[in-house]
Amino acid sequence: MTANPATPLLDKVAIPSDLRKLEPGQLRQLADELRSEMISAVGQTGGHLGSGLGVVELTVAIHYVFNTPDDRLVWDVGHQAYPHKILTGRRDRIRTLRQGGGLSGFTKRSESEYDPFGAAHSSTSISAALGFATANRLSGKPGRGIAVIGDGAMSAGMAYEAMNNARSAGNRLVVILNDNDMSIAPPVGGLSSYLARLVSSQQFLHMRDFARKISRRLPEPLHKAARKTDEYARGLAMGGTLFEELGFYYVGPIDGHNMDQLVPILENVRDAPEGPCLVHVVTQKGKGYGPAEQSADKYHGVQKFDVVTGEQAKSAGGPPSYTNVFAGQLIKEARADTRVCAITAAMPSGTGVDKFANEFPDRSFDVGIAEQHAVTFAAGLAAQGMRPFCAIYSTFLQRAFDQVVHDVAIQNLPVRFAIDRAGLVGADGATHAGSFDVTYLSTLPNFVVMAAADEAELVHMVHTAAHYDGGPIAFRYPRGSGTGLELPENPERLAIGKGRIVREGSKIALLSLGTRLGEAIKAADQLDAKGLSTTVADLRFAKPLDEELIRRLMTSHEVVVTIEEGSIGGLGAHVLTMASDEGLTDAGLKIRTMRLPDLFQDQDKPEKQYDAAGLNSPQIIETVLKALRHNSAGVREARA
Amino acid sequence: MTANPATPLLDKVAIPSDLRKLEPGQLRQLADELRSEMISAVGQTGGHLGSGLGVVELTVAIHYVFNTPDDRLVWDVGHQAYPHKILTGRRDRIRTLRQGGGLSGFTKRSESEYDPFGAAHSSTSISAALGFATANRLSGKPGRGIAVIGDGAMSAGMAYEAMNNARSAGNRLVVILNDNDMSIAPPVGGLSSYLARLVSSQQFLHMRDFARKISRRLPEPLHKAARKTDEYARGLAMGGTLFEELGFYYVGPIDGHNMDQLVPILENVRDAPEGPCLVHVVTQKGKGYGPAEQSADKYHGVQKFDVVTGEQAKSAGGPPSYTNVFAGQLIKEARADTRVCAITAAMPSGTGVDKFANEFPDRSFDVGIAEQHAVTFAAGLAAQGMRPFCAIYSTFLQRAFDQVVHDVAIQNLPVRFAIDRAGLVGADGATHAGSFDVTYLSTLPNFVVMAAADEAELVHMVHTAAHYDGGPIAFRYPRGSGTGLELPENPERLAIGKGRIVREGSKIALLSLGTRLGEAIKAADQLDAKGLSTTVADLRFAKPLDEELIRRLMTSHEVVVTIEEGSIGGLGAHVLTMASDEGLTDAGLKIRTMRLPDLFQDQDKPEKQYDAAGLNSPQIIETVLKALRHNSAGVREARA
Repeated sequence: MTANPATPLLDKVAIPSDLRKLEPGQLRQLADELRSEMISAVGQTGGHLGSGLGVVELTVAIHYVFNTPDDRLVWDVGHQAYPHKILTGRRDRIRTLRQGGGLSGFTKRSESEYDPFGAAHSSTSISAALGFATANRLSGKPGRGIAVIGDGAMSAGMAYEAMNNARSAGNRLVVILNDNDMSIAPPVGGLSSYLARLVSSQQFLHMRDFARKISRRLPEPLHKAARKTDEYARGLAMGGTLFEELGFYYVGPIDGHNMDQLVPILENVRDAPEGPCLVHVVTQKGKGYGPAEQSADKYHGVQKFDVVTGEQAKSAGGPPSYTNVFAGQLIKEARADTRVCAITAAMPSGTGVDKFANEFPDRSFDVGIAEQHAVTFAAGLAAQGMRPFCAIYSTFLQRAFDQVVHDVAIQNLPVRFAIDRAGLVGADGATHAGSFDVTYLSTLPNFVVMAAADEAELVHMVHTAAHYDGGPIAFRYPRGSGTGLELPENPERLAIGKGRIVREGSKIALLSLGTRLGEAIKAADQLDAKGLSTTVADLRFAKPLDEELIRRLMTSHEVVVTIEEGSIGGLGAHVLTMASDEGLTDAGLKIRTMRLPDLFQDQDKPEKQYDAAGLNSPQIIETVLKALRHNSAGVREARA
Repeated sequence: MTANPATPLLDKVAIPSDLRKLEPGQLRQLADELRSEMISAVGQTGGHLGSGLGVVELTVAIHYVFNTPDDRLVWDVGHQAYPHKILTGRRDRIRTLRQGGGLSGFTKRSESEYDPFGAAHSSTSISAALGFATANRLSGKPGRGIAVIGDGAMSAGMAYEAMNNARSAGNRLVVILNDNDMSIAPPVGGLSSYLARLVSSQQFLHMRDFARKISRRLPEPLHKAARKTDEYARGLAMGGTLFEELGFYYVGPIDGHNMDQLVPILENVRDAPEGPCLVHVVTQKGKGYGPAEQSADKYHGVQKFDVVTGEQAKSAGGPPSYTNVFAGQLIKEARADTRVCAITAAMPSGTGVDKFANEFPDRSFDVGIAEQHAVTFAAGLAAQGMRPFCAIYSTFLQRAFDQVVHDVAIQNLPVRFAIDRAGLVGADGATHAGSFDVTYLSTLPNFVVMAAADEAELVHMVHTAAHYDGGPIAFRYPRGSGTGLELPENPERLAIGKGRIVREGSKIALLSLGTRLGEAIKAADQLDAKGLSTTVADLRFAKPLDEELIRRLMTSHEVVVTIEEGSIGGLGAHVLTMASDEGLTDAGLKIRTMRLPDLFQDQDKPEKQYDAAGLNSPQIIETVLKALRHNSAGVREARA
C-alpha cells in the first residue's frame, strides 16, 4: 500500500473559505495536491476517477471565485465531485467513498451544505441551478445558481429544456460546460460535432479577448427598449453560437487546466451585469495521471488500483455478467434475423451494445444520453417492421416513461426492452437502483414483462423477445455476474405468461420473479428440512401472470409467498389483485408479498443490501414461519 | 344547421394519389375547399380547429409532393391532422371526430395506413420519423420519414434529442417546422425568440434564393474526406442556424399559405441528394376563418360552433371546473405565503396557472412543453425554501417520471404536484387519460399521494399541500366540473394518511379514492335498501394508507371493495398488500378491487367511459353481490 501523499497546502484547506484566503499564485500547488489526494483515495476505494481528475483545477477555481455555499453549486451527474468533496469538509471520509455507511459516489444533500442538489442521473443541473437562482431572486437572497455540466450530458433533452428557459434567471445563473469530448463513451450527435468545431476553430480565450468580447456582448443597463434593440441587433447578426441563440452569453473556449485563465475569467463572469453566461471550459478527462490519460476510457470508473502502476484490482473471474450474456444472445439473434437491431443511450459498454455494434455497426444505435428519443426512435423502427431492442438500465428507462406509454404501449408496438441493472446495484446506491420497472411497466396495458432468474433464463428471454411481435415486451436482469449456469445452446421460445415449477411441494408455495429464485430454493430446502413441504415456482412473467399456475398453487397450498426484487405495486400486487378478483382468498389463505422496502437504500455491498431489504433466504423462511404462526382465529373473531 | 359546403374538386380526391393527378394550378382551389370542409365538420363536432386551419396548404402540398403512404408522414401531436384525415380516405367519417366509435382527434395507426405513427403528446415526431427513415434504409425500402412539428413542440427536450441524432438519416429525413408562433399559449423560451428573429430578419425564401442556397449548402457527392472538409468549412464560418449547427440543412423561412412557394421548394427538398433537411414554414394558426383569426387562442380547441358567426355552443353553466377550484385556492395560499409559486408546462389556461399568473406574475412559470425541466426546476425551488406547485396533467407528468423519482423523491423535496385530468378524459381518449399516476407515484418512497373526491376536498388538499414541508406531495383531480358543493371558506389541513368515514354501515365496506365516491355512495344507498348495511370511506390518501381505518373496516365487515379511477398497482394493490402483510385476510375476507380495465380506452362521453370501465354504481353493486355469492367453501375444499 502506498502512503498517502504529502499535501501541506491542502492540509490547511478544510472548507472553501480557507481556500479563498490563499494567493492566486498558490492555487496551482493546491490543485496538484488535490489531484494527488484524489488519486490516492480512489486507489483505495475504486470509483469514478477520470472525470474528477479532469476538473481538479476547475473545482479549485470555482470555490475560489464564487461564494459557496451561498452560491449554489450543482455538479451534473456528480461523479466528478470527488475533488469538490475533499475541499468541502469531507476529506476525512474520502477513503470511504461508495462503501456502506461511507460517502456517496455522487453529490448528496444530506452529506454537506456544499451539495445543494444531489445528482447521479445526468443533465439535471441547469434546471436545478435555475431553480436556486430563481428562488434567491424571489426571496431577495444573495447567491447564484452554478451548474457544471459535461458535454455528454448536453445531449439530453432536459438540459436543452433548461437552457431554453435560462434567460429569465439573469446573471444569477452560470452554466459551466465542462467539455472533455467524452462522457463514458465517445460522444455522438450533432451537438458534439458542433462543440468540436467550436473548439477546433477558435483559440482559447485569454483575458484580453474576454474583456473585448464581454464589452461587445453585454448590453447597456437595461430598459425594455434597450433589450429589444439588443435582440434585434443579435437577430440581424445571426452569427452567435447555438448557446447565444438560446439566450446565453457564451464565453470560451477556455483551457480548463490553466489557473491563470480560469480564475480571472470566472471572476469576470461572476461580476458580469447581465446573464445568464455559459462558460465553455475544455478539460482533459483523466488529466494529470498517466495511466488514466493513456487509457481509452480515461479511467472513467475503476476498481481499487495501485497508484504507482495504475494497475487495477482484477475482479474475480467467475461467470460472465448478465450484460455479456444478453449481448451474446442478441448477436446470435441478429445473425439469424436482419431485422434485429440494438439501441443504447450512451451506455454501449454498460449494456453490451458495443459488442453488438462490432458485428452489426449498421444495426446498432448509440443515441447519446437521450432515453426519450431512444424509445420513440425504437417505436418508429418497430412500426416499420424492424425488431428493435432498447437496452437501457432500469433506472434510466424512467426518463422515457411517457414514450414507453404513449409511443409504444398505446400503439402496441413490438419494441423489446432489455432492462439491465434491475434491482439493487451495490456501490452506486439509491439513484441507480432499478426498483420500479416491474411496477411502472406492468401497470400498462399491452405490455409483457419478464424477469430472468438466471443467465440461462436470460438467454431464453432474449430469444423469446426476438420472436415475439405481439406488442411491447420487456425483460429485466440484474447488475453483476450470472450464477454460473451453462448457457443453453438452443434457446426456447417461452410461452408468454407461463411460469415454471422449479421444485414441487405441498404446504408452502414460493412464487419468485427474477433472481431471488436462488434464495427461494435455499429457503425451500430448509423449510423442507423442517417438515414444511415447499413448492418453488419461477413465474418468469410479471405480466401476463400465469393465472392457471397461481390458481393451482393457491388452492393447494397453505401459505403462498411472492418474492421479487422490486418496489410495491409489482409482482406481489398483481398476484394479490388476481387472487382477490377471483375470490381465491375468500375462504382464507395466507399470502405474503416480499419486495423491496419502501425507502431509498443507500449504497453497500450487494449481499448487505439484500439483507437490509429482507430478500435473503433467512427472511423468506421467517416470513413463512411467521405466516404459519399468525393467529387468524383472532382476526376471524374480531370480524365476528 | 348550415349545409355542407360545395367542394367539387375535393369530391374527386379520395386519397393522395388522386391529388397527385391534379395540376399545380388546381391546388389553391383544393386547399380552399378543404378548408371549408374542415370548418364545416368541426362546426358540427367541436375539436381542434386553429391548428388544422393553419396547415391546410401545407397538408395539400406535402401529399402532392411526397409519396405517401410510402413516405411516412408523422404529424406531431396530431391535432392539426384533420385536413390530412379528409385527404386520406376518412372524409366520410370526419363528422364523427372525437365521438365514441368515431375518428380520433389525433393520428392513429389503426385508422389508416396514412397514419404510420399515432400521436397526441407533443414532440415525438422527429424521433419516429427518424425510426422510419432508418428502418427503410436498413431494409432497402424506398420511403422517407417526414415529421411536421410546431414551434411550440420544439421546446421539448425529446425534439432536441431527435434533432441531435438526425444526421445519420441522410436525406431520408425531412423535418417541417410549422412555425405559427404559438402552440396552445404564446410561446416561451430562448428557442421561440430565436425563431422570431429568424423570421423577422429574413425575407421569405423564393425558388431562386432556394436554388442558390441549396447549391451552396449541399456538399459534393460524399466521400469521408469530403464530408470532413465540409464540416470544417462550416465550422470556420460558424454562421449557420441553430439547426445547421445540429446537422440539418436549413431551408426557409417559407410562407406556408403560398402554394407557389410550398410546392416547388418541397419538391427540391424531396430531390436533395443530402440531408436531413429542416424546412421552416411560417403559418398562421386559424388561417382563412375570420372568427378564428380574430380570437386570441385562434380557436385552438372549440365546442360545436355556428360556421357563419363563429359562435360556439356554450357549455352548460354548472359548477366551476376542478381546474378553477385549484387555481382559486392556490391564489389564496399565495396571498398568505410569499413562498408559494406555480409552474406549468405550456398549459397555463388548462391548469389555471394563467389566473395565478395574473396576480403573481413573478411567482408563476410557464416553461413551455418541458415537463422534465419543470419538475427539476421545481425541485431546485423547493431545495431553496420555496413552496412550488407543479401543475401538470396526469398524462404529461409521465414525461417527467425520472425527475419525479431522482430529483424529488430520492431527495425528499417538498414539491407539490397538482395533477389535473386524472382518470378518464372523454373526447381526448386514451392518449390523454390520466390512468397511471397513482401507481407510478405511490410506488415511490417518501411520496404522499392524495385524490380529491370532490371540489371541496380539492380545496382542503391544496391547503394541505401548501403547508406540508415533509417531502413530495401530490393531489389528483379529474377533468371537468365539480359536483356543485359549496367551497369551504376555511380549508382544513388534512392529517397526512388519514381517510374519513362518509357513511357508516356494518356488512359491506366501500373504500373509495377520488371522484368515484359519489357512485360509491349511490351504490351504498341501494345496497342498504337490499338489507346490506354498507360503510363508505373516502380514503383521501393512496399513500400513506390509513392503515388503522382499513384494519378496522376489514376486521368488522364481510366484504371490502376498493374503488379508484386508476390502473392496476394503485390504491387497490396497496390495500391488498397491507392486508396481506398484516395477515388480515388469513382467516378469509372477501376483498375486491375495482379499477380501470387493463386496456387503453378510446374516446367517448365520460359517462359511457365510466360504464365501459365498470366504475359506476351498478357495477359496484354487482361486484358486492357477486362477492357475497361467491362460494368460498369451494375454494376451501379445493385447498383441503
